[in-house]
Amino acid sequence: MGKLVPLRRREATGQVNVLPPSDILFWNSLFQGLDRSGAFLQLQIRQMIVTAIEDGRLPLGVRMPSSRDLAALLKVSRNTIVIAYEQLVDQNFLVSRERSGYFVAGLPKQIEQVRSNGLPAAGSDESRWTERFALRPSQFRNIIKPLDWQSYPYPFIFGQFDPSLFPTNDWRESARAALSVPEINNWARDMIDGDDPALIEQLQCQVLPRRGIRARSDEIMMTIGAQHALYLIAKLFVVADTPVGMEDPGYPDARNIFGMLTSNVVPLRIDEQGLVPDEVFERCRLAYVTASHQCPTAVSMSLERRRELLRIAKARDILLIEDDYESELIPEVSSLPPLMSLDVDQSVLYVGSLSKALAPGLRLGYVVAPAPVIRELRALRRLMLRHPPLNNQRVAALFIGLGHYRSHLQQVARVLLERAKLLDRMLPQFLPNCSWTRAAGSTNYWVSCPEGTDTTQLAEKARARGVVIEPGDVFSMHEAATRHCFRLGFSSIRTDRIEPGMECLGSVVAGR
Amino acid sequence: MGKLVPLRRREATGQVNVLPPSDILFWNSLFQGLDRSGAFLQLQIRQMIVTAIEDGRLPLGVRMPSSRDLAALLKVSRNTIVIAYEQLVDQNFLVSRERSGYFVAGLPKQIEQVRSNGLPAAGSDESRWTERFALRPSQFRNIIKPLDWQSYPYPFIFGQFDPSLFPTNDWRESARAALSVPEINNWARDMIDGDDPALIEQLQCQVLPRRGIRARSDEIMMTIGAQHALYLIAKLFVVADTPVGMEDPGYPDARNIFGMLTSNVVPLRIDEQGLVPDEVFERCRLAYVTASHQCPTAVSMSLERRRELLRIAKARDILLIEDDYESELIPEVSSLPPLMSLDVDQSVLYVGSLSKALAPGLRLGYVVAPAPVIRELRALRRLMLRHPPLNNQRVAALFIGLGHYRSHLQQVARVLLERAKLLDRMLPQFLPNCSWTRAAGSTNYWVSCPEGTDTTQLAEKARARGVVIEPGDVFSMHEAATRHCFRLGFSSIRTDRIEPGMECLGSVVAGR
Repeated sequence: MGKLVPLRRREATGQVNVLPPSDILFWNSLFQGLDRSGAFLQLQIRQMIVTAIEDGRLPLGVRMPSSRDLAALLKVSRNTIVIAYEQLVDQNFLVSRERSGYFVAGLPKQIEQVRSNGLPAAGSDESRWTERFALRPSQFRNIIKPLDWQSYPYPFIFGQFDPSLFPTNDWRESARAALSVPEINNWARDMIDGDDPALIEQLQCQVLPRRGIRARSDEIMMTIGAQHALYLIAKLFVVADTPVGMEDPGYPDARNIFGMLTSNVVPLRIDEQGLVPDEVFERCRLAYVTASHQCPTAVSMSLERRRELLRIAKARDILLIEDDYESELIPEVSSLPPLMSLDVDQSVLYVGSLSKALAPGLRLGYVVAPAPVIRELRALRRLMLRHPPLNNQRVAALFIGLGHYRSHLQQVARVLLERAKLLDRMLPQFLPNCSWTRAAGSTNYWVSCPEGTDTTQLAEKARARGVVIEPGDVFSMHEAATRHCFRLGFSSIRTDRIEPGMECLGSVVAGR
Repeated sequence: MGKLVPLRRREATGQVNVLPPSDILFWNSLFQGLDRSGAFLQLQIRQMIVTAIEDGRLPLGVRMPSSRDLAALLKVSRNTIVIAYEQLVDQNFLVSRERSGYFVAGLPKQIEQVRSNGLPAAGSDESRWTERFALRPSQFRNIIKPLDWQSYPYPFIFGQFDPSLFPTNDWRESARAALSVPEINNWARDMIDGDDPALIEQLQCQVLPRRGIRARSDEIMMTIGAQHALYLIAKLFVVADTPVGMEDPGYPDARNIFGMLTSNVVPLRIDEQGLVPDEVFERCRLAYVTASHQCPTAVSMSLERRRELLRIAKARDILLIEDDYESELIPEVSSLPPLMSLDVDQSVLYVGSLSKALAPGLRLGYVVAPAPVIRELRALRRLMLRHPPLNNQRVAALFIGLGHYRSHLQQVARVLLERAKLLDRMLPQFLPNCSWTRAAGSTNYWVSCPEGTDTTQLAEKARARGVVIEPGDVFSMHEAATRHCFRLGFSSIRTDRIEPGMECLGSVVAGR
C-alpha cells in the first residue's frame, strides 16, 4: 500500500510536467495501437509497456512519463495509468523511485543473440524446400472465404456466425466457473489420451439423445473440431489404394483428407434424395455421407434412402462416415434421424461438432463409434497431439450442464428459421432465373445459375459490391460440373441485411 | 423480480414440509455427486437438475422439493436453492406455479429414439475391426504414467506440474480479459489456416528472443502442443523409406510418430556431449535432436558438438528437428543457446511449447521454420484440424503481453532450482549404488541402477509405497539397453515431499 505514497506526494505539488516534443513523438509511437473505445484500457497499456520492454524499445533505466503526463497524452484517466504502473512495479518491469518517478527495471541476462537478422527472406530458397517436401498440402483446391468477411455488409457465407448470436453472458458464466482452483487443477493436467469425463457425460446425457443416439463413454472421443475427426478416421482406415467414396459435389476438406491418403477417391452421385447407393458405391470400402443436409446441395436424404444405404453398407461391408455437421442447428419438423440412430450393424462412424453453433474458433468436435475404433482413434490422437485443450472441454461441459447449450440452440434456431423464411421469399424475387435447394434444418441454399455462368467471376463482382457468396466449382471433383452454382449461407448475415444484400446480389446476377 | 413472490408467500406461512422417505431416497440419489466442499454449489445443483431433466430421470411435470426442503436435504443454504430454481425458470427447465412450487417443464419434441440399447458391448466384434484398421496405433510402446499421479504422495514424474505452481490469479486476469465482447468476436471466428496475430507477435517479441531466436511472423505457426508440431513436420517430410535419425535412448512419442511414417527409423548414439554425429547420422535425411537437455538422459550438448552437428547437417543436407521441449524453464548459468539460434543455413526446424511450463492441459506449442515450410505446415494443419482453439491463443497472448509469463517462469525457475539443489544432495545419500546425469536447465535426472536391475519391477514396488518413477526401457529402441535406468522428474513433486520420497525410493532400490 505504501507504494502509492511517493507518487501522490510528488504529484500533489501541482507541478506541471509537460513532455518535450520528441518525447511526445516517442511515447505516441509506443502506444500507437491503443484502442480507446475498447475494453480493458489499463490492460492494453500494460501489455504495450511490457512488450516494449521485452523487445528492447524501452531499455533499462528509461524514465517513464509521469502518470499525469501519460494520461494526458493517451487521453485516458490518470487512475488507469497509476494502476498500470503499480502493477508493473509488482512484476518488476518498472521500479518506483521516490520523488523521481518510474523507471524501466533491469532484465535477467538473456542468451546472447547469435542470429540478429532473422531467417533469410521468404522465397529466397523456395526450390530447395520444394524438393524436400513429401507432400504439398498447399496445392489442394479448397474453399476460400475472405477472413475479413465481417467487414463486408452482406456476408452470405456458410459455417460462420454473426457475432450477435454468441451467448456472451452464459459463456462467461461457464468460463469463469472453470477458473476456480479445483477446476484449474482438473484441466491443467496432461490427460495423455483421455478427455474430460464431464464433457463426455454431457454428450451422452444431453447432446446425443437429441439425435436419437445412445452411446457409452468408451464410444465417444473429442476432437479439434469435426474436421479433425474426419482426419483421424481416414488415417485409421485408409491406405494407398483404399477405394473411398466421396459425395460429388461434396465437402472439399473431406475430399482433400482422403486424397492425401489414397489415390482411389471415387465420386458418388447425388440426386434429390441424397447419395445414390449405386454400383460405384458398392465397390467402396469407406464412404463419406452428409445425410441430414448434403454438403453443399443441402438436400436431405429420404428415410427410405437412409435404410437402403445402411442395408447395402452392411451387405458389402462398407464403412459409412456420417458427418452430421449441422446436427440440431435448426430442428425443423421434417428433420430426419441421422444414419447412426438407424444403424444396428455398426456400419456408421458418426462425426459431430459442438463449436459450430457456438464459435468455430473454439474447435470442439467429436466422434461416436464402436469401442474398438475409439480405442485406436485415441492412440492415434495421442500420437498426433494428445487431446483437445482440457480447459475448453471443461467450459463446454459446464455450458451444456448448466442448460445454456439448449437455450442457445433454441435462440439460434429461432433466428435462423426467420432468416430462412425471409430468403424463401427473396430468392424468387431477386434471382428469378436461378433454381435452388435447401432441406429442413440446413443453414445454406445451393443456387444454380443459368448454364454457362461462371460463379467465380460472379462472386468477385458481388464482393466488389459488398456481397460475399461461395462459388461452386471447388465442391466438385470436375470443376466444370458446378461452376454455375454457388452456396448461399445465412448464419453469418444479420437478418436486417438480408433484403438489401439479396437485392444487390440479384442485380449482380442479372448483370446490372 | 415478481417471480420470487409466490415462493416467499408460500414459505412464509411457516408450514413445515417434510419430504417422505422415498422422496428423500430419490432426491439424494439425484444429487449424489454434490461436492459440498467445492466451489460454485449453486452451479453444481443447476447442472445436476438440468442433466437429470435432459436424460429423463426428472420427467415432465415432476414437482421439485421446496427450496427449504432441498436446502435441508443437501445441507446448503436455502438461498442457493432459490437462486438455482429461479435461473432454471428463466431457462424454461422449470416452471413456477403460484402456491404450489416448481415443476419440471416440457421439452421440445425429441427425435424418436431408434437405438435404445446403445452400441453392442465393447469387444463383441473385435476381430472384425482389427481386419479393417490400416494401422494399429494402440500397439506402439509408450510411456505410461498413472493419470492419478496427484494422488500419490511422492510423484517424481516428468512434464507435469504440482498444482501449487499454477499462476492462478494472473491466468484468471488474462482469461477474463479474453471474455470481453470485442475479444470474443476476435476468437469466435474460424481462422481457416491462420493463428491469432497477437500471440505470434508475443512469441516474436518476448518468447523467442530469450532463446536467441529472431523470426518473422510468417516463420511461426501454433500447434496443439509441441507433439503436434513433431507430427506435422514428420508428415511433411517423411515417406515410406525416408531414413530418419532418432536419438537412442530418446523421446518415445517422436519415435512412434516417425515409425508410423517410415520403416527406416535409425537409432543415433548419445554420449556425454549429446547426439553423436557419426556416419550413421550422416546417412539420415532428417534427425530428431534435443540439444538443450537430451530426452531422457538430460545431458546437454556441448557448444562444439552443436557447431559440428550444424556443419555436418549442412554438408549432408540433413534436416534437424530441434525439440527445445524445456526451453527456458530453468535458466541456469551454463545453459547454451539452442541449435536454431546458431543456424545460418536453414538446417533447423524448431519446436517449442508454451503450455509445458504453465499447464500441459492447455496444449499450446509452436514451430519456427523458414516461410516455405510454415506455408506447407499451415496447409497441412488446415486439413487436419484448421487451427488450435483461438480463445486459448488469445488468453496466452494476453498472459505473455501482460508480463505474467515472464514472472511465472521466474517463479517456476526459483522453485525448480531449489528442488534440483535438494536432489543433488539427496541422490548420493539415498541411491549410493546408482549413477545419474542432469544438465543445467533440466527438470529430470536420468538414474542408472546397477546392471541387471529391472526398473519396471522397481517402479511397481515403488508405486506400492507411494513413489512414482518412470522406468527406462520404453525410451530405447532395444528395451534391454535402458532397462536398468529410470527417469526421475521433479516438477511434479512438492519441495517438502522430496526428502521423504527419496528416502522411500532409496529403501525400495536397496531392496528393503
